[in-house]
Amino acid sequence: MPKAAFNALVARLSLPPIPAVQSWARSYDGAHGPLIDLSQAVPGYPPHPDLLGWLADAAGSAAYAGYGAIEGDGVLRAAYATHVSELYGARLGAANVHLTAGCNQAFVAAVMAVAGPGDAVLMTNPCYFNHETTLQMMGVAPRYFECHAEAGFVPRVADVAAALDGVKALALVSPNNPTGAVYPPELLGEIFELCRERGVWLILDETYRDFIATGSGRPHGLFDVDGWEENLIQLYSFSKSFCIPGHRLGAITAGAEAVTQMAKVMDNLQICAPRAPQQAVARGLPALVEWREGNRLEIERRADAMRAAFASLPEWEMEAMGAYFAFVRHPFDGVDAASVAQTMARDLGVVTIPGSYFGTGLERHLRIAFANVDAEQIGEVAGRLRLMK
Amino acid sequence: MPKAAFNALVARLSLPPIPAVQSWARSYDGAHGPLIDLSQAVPGYPPHPDLLGWLADAAGSAAYAGYGAIEGDGVLRAAYATHVSELYGARLGAANVHLTAGCNQAFVAAVMAVAGPGDAVLMTNPCYFNHETTLQMMGVAPRYFECHAEAGFVPRVADVAAALDGVKALALVSPNNPTGAVYPPELLGEIFELCRERGVWLILDETYRDFIATGSGRPHGLFDVDGWEENLIQLYSFSKSFCIPGHRLGAITAGAEAVTQMAKVMDNLQICAPRAPQQAVARGLPALVEWREGNRLEIERRADAMRAAFASLPEWEMEAMGAYFAFVRHPFDGVDAASVAQTMARDLGVVTIPGSYFGTGLERHLRIAFANVDAEQIGEVAGRLRLMK
Repeated sequence: MPKAAFNALVARLSLPPIPAVQSWARSYDGAHGPLIDLSQAVPGYPPHPDLLGWLADAAGSAAYAGYGAIEGDGVLRAAYATHVSELYGARLGAANVHLTAGCNQAFVAAVMAVAGPGDAVLMTNPCYFNHETTLQMMGVAPRYFECHAEAGFVPRVADVAAALDGVKALALVSPNNPTGAVYPPELLGEIFELCRERGVWLILDETYRDFIATGSGRPHGLFDVDGWEENLIQLYSFSKSFCIPGHRLGAITAGAEAVTQMAKVMDNLQICAPRAPQQAVARGLPALVEWREGNRLEIERRADAMRAAFASLPEWEMEAMGAYFAFVRHPFDGVDAASVAQTMARDLGVVTIPGSYFGTGLERHLRIAFANVDAEQIGEVAGRLRLMK
Repeated sequence: MPKAAFNALVARLSLPPIPAVQSWARSYDGAHGPLIDLSQAVPGYPPHPDLLGWLADAAGSAAYAGYGAIEGDGVLRAAYATHVSELYGARLGAANVHLTAGCNQAFVAAVMAVAGPGDAVLMTNPCYFNHETTLQMMGVAPRYFECHAEAGFVPRVADVAAALDGVKALALVSPNNPTGAVYPPELLGEIFELCRERGVWLILDETYRDFIATGSGRPHGLFDVDGWEENLIQLYSFSKSFCIPGHRLGAITAGAEAVTQMAKVMDNLQICAPRAPQQAVARGLPALVEWREGNRLEIERRADAMRAAFASLPEWEMEAMGAYFAFVRHPFDGVDAASVAQTMARDLGVVTIPGSYFGTGLERHLRIAFANVDAEQIGEVAGRLRLMK
């Protein structure tokens, strides 16, 4: 009998990287102290107790057990529109918001709304691996432009301009995953202007924006641009700021027409986002401002501890560092990133993700997600890395 | 400036049908009594109070706020494998289970794992509209074979056989949405054998299986077939049986290799299904067996009431009736289904979905989802329909 085949676009994707990396960590014998897991981009502290209470209230209520609106519950669409309006000094309404089950799903909905099989979407090299595999499984061709270590992995406008023709969208992540690089507002403004001139969508994932360093001002002014709705789809995740990745909640901010197109996609993907977290986060957005600010400062302390750790390791170079991630260059000439990361995880209990998982030409790099461990644990990293041969 | 375009595959999809139908209902003035909403396939009763308590426990716990495994939490994968094994008299393990955020997402993951842009998937006419739009937005060509009113909309093997060449998968829904038709186990066995002979995947959505009439035995014996893992992907939703569509939880049963491929898709789509409902349903699966059986009997009573209502309307014909749906033929020659449904909703407060939303040649049909209203309300339907001109 002929064998039923899998979709080649999916069959040829590598296995999801996080479980692979975590399997290395399971081989660590604890010889150098507790595991230091710098692999997954998750906060290492629990959600606020009030938020847990609101989650319990909503999940235990028959009122939210039923289907909700495809675009999301009105109460959170409105609360989030208010929040985004304040953060960016913009005027946005609930009609500009589409809620999703996390930011990966927001990216799927955004890309699907603007690009189909055979189309191309421009990304950075390095890029967030799930963005790349999402395009690949959809039959959308990823194209890349280089972000350079000497520029701290911040894009150069000329590189974007040279690569922008013939693509349906440009997908950017700022603060960046994997490098941590925070793209300056002026740069984002210039890149957006290029997109508008070429009739290209900018899909801007700002999952980590709540962790931008003190005194940085608003992330960008793109929502001020007249007619921004024609070219911008902006993505966000509640997972990091509210410490609830297991509840799956993200948000898209876009023009009303783009929201309408994405609602068609979302109806097929899952009808509506889970409702209990929508209700709880609608309460938490205004109520937990100070708690989120405290967490931001805590993540800044962790970033400082990480800088100090690598400052004491002259053979390692921290080439970029930002809201949630550091991107470092290891000192082992000719050794590929996966081997280095595997040795670090198995032998030293320091878990990171190889740079090669994020793109090409990155065999000397590792991504370090430092939000997951406290400053004290980070202090132990340098001692362990000194044991590397 | 050139305009940034939407993806034509998405732009050309119609708007999601349920909100459109609900907007007709909002125009009803109440003249004939309370609205009778027979449009959406949802149970009209609340979740069990114990389940709400378990949902609250899990949602309020920091333990389930973090990311879970892509394939799902082990506790529910194992509990569901046990449940399915008992229900079908089969031997399935946790490795055969992939949890999803609802059954629409399960369908997306299943199709994407086996079919890509340019491939074709065979469906029934009529079919569940979200299955059709899912294929269309992915660039997968839907093909159709007819299910005939005179056969109660149960497929004929010869029709399947004639249409099966050149497709990657056959997508079936039993008990069927929209017709309610329950496909007999022997028929499913014959169709599966055809699929195996031709190297075609059978994607079998059994969202409504818990509402099959008393005494029907197991839904089918496909899991007994040697090598079933090579051709079968079976889908299920916890939304209907546990009355929790707002929590978004579904499940896929498949071979371990298919689960591995779908996990790649699911990692991109949303990393993992929401965790609180996974924990709660793992407790509810064994604990709420009697409650679910009571609900099944209640839905049977509603089906009986619906049969009685249409038996008293000689000009209307109930052409199919099953677990959750009736598919009826209206008496208005030359009037399209959407007009009839709109009039019923606006003027009489009886909300149904036009047959034309489910396929071609169905202008005389309406889908009636009777689980949402109790037998007493169903008793009022006939009186209102007699007022139709």
